[in-house]
Amino acid sequence: MSLLEKTLQQITPRDKMAETEARERLDKLTMPHWALGKLMDLAVDLSGMTGTKKPMVSKKSVIVMAADHGVANEGVSLYPPEVTMQMVLNFVNGGAGINALAKLNGARVHVVDMGVNGALSQFMNTDSIEVVHIGNGTRNMAEGPAMSKEQAIESVEAGIRIAIDFGQRTDIFGTGDMGIGNTTPSSAIVSVMTGEEPSQVTGRGTGIGDKQFQGKVETIKKALQVNQADSSDAMDVLAKLGGFEIGGIAGLILGAASLHKPVVIDGFISTAGALIAYGLSPLSAEYIVAAHKSVEKGHTAALKMLGKQPLLDLNMRLGEGTGAALAMNIVEAAVRVLTEVATFDEAGVSEAE
Amino acid sequence: MSLLEKTLQQITPRDKMAETEARERLDKLTMPHWALGKLMDLAVDLSGMTGTKKPMVSKKSVIVMAADHGVANEGVSLYPPEVTMQMVLNFVNGGAGINALAKLNGARVHVVDMGVNGALSQFMNTDSIEVVHIGNGTRNMAEGPAMSKEQAIESVEAGIRIAIDFGQRTDIFGTGDMGIGNTTPSSAIVSVMTGEEPSQVTGRGTGIGDKQFQGKVETIKKALQVNQADSSDAMDVLAKLGGFEIGGIAGLILGAASLHKPVVIDGFISTAGALIAYGLSPLSAEYIVAAHKSVEKGHTAALKMLGKQPLLDLNMRLGEGTGAALAMNIVEAAVRVLTEVATFDEAGVSEAE
Repeated sequence: MSLLEKTLQQITPRDKMAETEARERLDKLTMPHWALGKLMDLAVDLSGMTGTKKPMVSKKSVIVMAADHGVANEGVSLYPPEVTMQMVLNFVNGGAGINALAKLNGARVHVVDMGVNGALSQFMNTDSIEVVHIGNGTRNMAEGPAMSKEQAIESVEAGIRIAIDFGQRTDIFGTGDMGIGNTTPSSAIVSVMTGEEPSQVTGRGTGIGDKQFQGKVETIKKALQVNQADSSDAMDVLAKLGGFEIGGIAGLILGAASLHKPVVIDGFISTAGALIAYGLSPLSAEYIVAAHKSVEKGHTAALKMLGKQPLLDLNMRLGEGTGAALAMNIVEAAVRVLTEVATFDEAGVSEAE
Repeated sequence: MSLLEKTLQQITPRDKMAETEARERLDKLTMPHWALGKLMDLAVDLSGMTGTKKPMVSKKSVIVMAADHGVANEGVSLYPPEVTMQMVLNFVNGGAGINALAKLNGARVHVVDMGVNGALSQFMNTDSIEVVHIGNGTRNMAEGPAMSKEQAIESVEAGIRIAIDFGQRTDIFGTGDMGIGNTTPSSAIVSVMTGEEPSQVTGRGTGIGDKQFQGKVETIKKALQVNQADSSDAMDVLAKLGGFEIGGIAGLILGAASLHKPVVIDGFISTAGALIAYGLSPLSAEYIVAAHKSVEKGHTAALKMLGKQPLLDLNMRLGEGTGAALAMNIVEAAVRVLTEVATFDEAGVSEAE
């Protein structure tokens, strides 16, 4: 059995008994009923994921998957493709948004070269980057499949492997992405998986103007036309319209779910990855926490398909895992409420009349 | 000159120069323009408040103001009035929601007996509680003024004094409240200050049913009718319809603003306090960060009057300062983005074409 097949088999539903136990304790806390709202909903979810009414979430790893995209040649971004590699160096040097936010919330940042167009290994001498490097970026999906089926499987299995490797020292995962052009494949994936028109799920990415935006939508339409991806076969969708980092994110989510560990998905690109994971195993969504609502237009439809409500809505659209790192504090807060707040009995407080 | 008058004089507009400097740096960070949205808006605000492009927000104090309310006798809450004192003991023992969330985000919790109906001093032997105790709770506002004008001033000045005292060891304040029945005076204050009908700004508080809710609205209408508070005189509004803890919160906000320190206001009761502060000094709102959108119906109108958008929206309605403690992580994140993320030049990343 392949690693992918084995992983899919290990993804089981959340533990309903642990959820019930958590809910019973939350019902008795010294506060009006369910007065901490979504923190309490989240605490129940985390109990179900981890199978315990005292979930651990202190060891946090944000895995930032990076890759380049052939479709960037269609002029879908404000930035030149070499920025992917430059930003990877920025991550490793600790200068990016994800570094600041992960540090604040006690998360480790691990960068993965899933397929950056450039020789990253020569720059690196650190354990904060891992070189998988399936290729020097994908091919241009507007002209044919972005990658082969084998590469798609390879990218997903790399993500699974990283989840298993980091699972030893991780209570909770966060997903992140870097790849100039990658809102374009993400919109294509969201369009196919949700059935929405490309124009309904395509946004401004790095902040492109009207003309460039029109070209981006046309590029996505062309890619859908050329590739005819099968929405019932997520691996086909990934191969034809994806990116190596998107496959890596899908794999990371599947791996986390197979380990019964929560995975906080970041914004639009991560949610496209989550749709691939969902297509391969709908149960994987039970282990997902949606960090925030991205500015990117297609994010809402993608989250809806996963059945997820985002924790934060702060007009963010950076990616890198920044939303996931920020939301990890909310996740930790949920657990603290469940595990640290006294019940009426414990505190000697009168209950509602 | 009284402490109140002196404090009002010391509240000056935010530092526009520091805001401009912050904005200039944020414009150059290694990310698409303003890609961290509200975090970046908030970073600019914090620079203006503190007068520096490197705001300090590491020393955090959540001040939880507690008091009882004569109007609780009208049956506006699910809980008996003695719960106010029981919860104060819970705070001091570390068992409440605010303790868990403040601890998570590195904030100190300081509880103030502004007017709890009970002899708290005999139970206490700790520096985490301060006894101001203006009275054994307010009088029933449905029958006449909740307190005298002198008591109203005393409650506001107590809040100012606490802000000044804690200012030595505090970069950022959070407000919190405890007081069975206190959504009722808060709705009355919001109604008078915003001009909205009581039914439009009254919510379910601890979770009351339809019949009790109707009684609550009638009680508020009666209090407005009996007292005829002058909306252009915030101290009159506080005296007739307020609570000692609401006056304390107003004073804390004024004190923080006079020290040019940010103050994160919690939910509905804190925002009612902020409206009193705003009435006394509209400039005080420039130092306010709104933590979250409360479930309480009147919160939206109150925040709108202050010109504030809340950072979080998590179906919370507990009070105690829980929203403020949670939002402090977002505030700290905003500062980290401003001070820790590299610029394009610093990181050698190519800018937009």
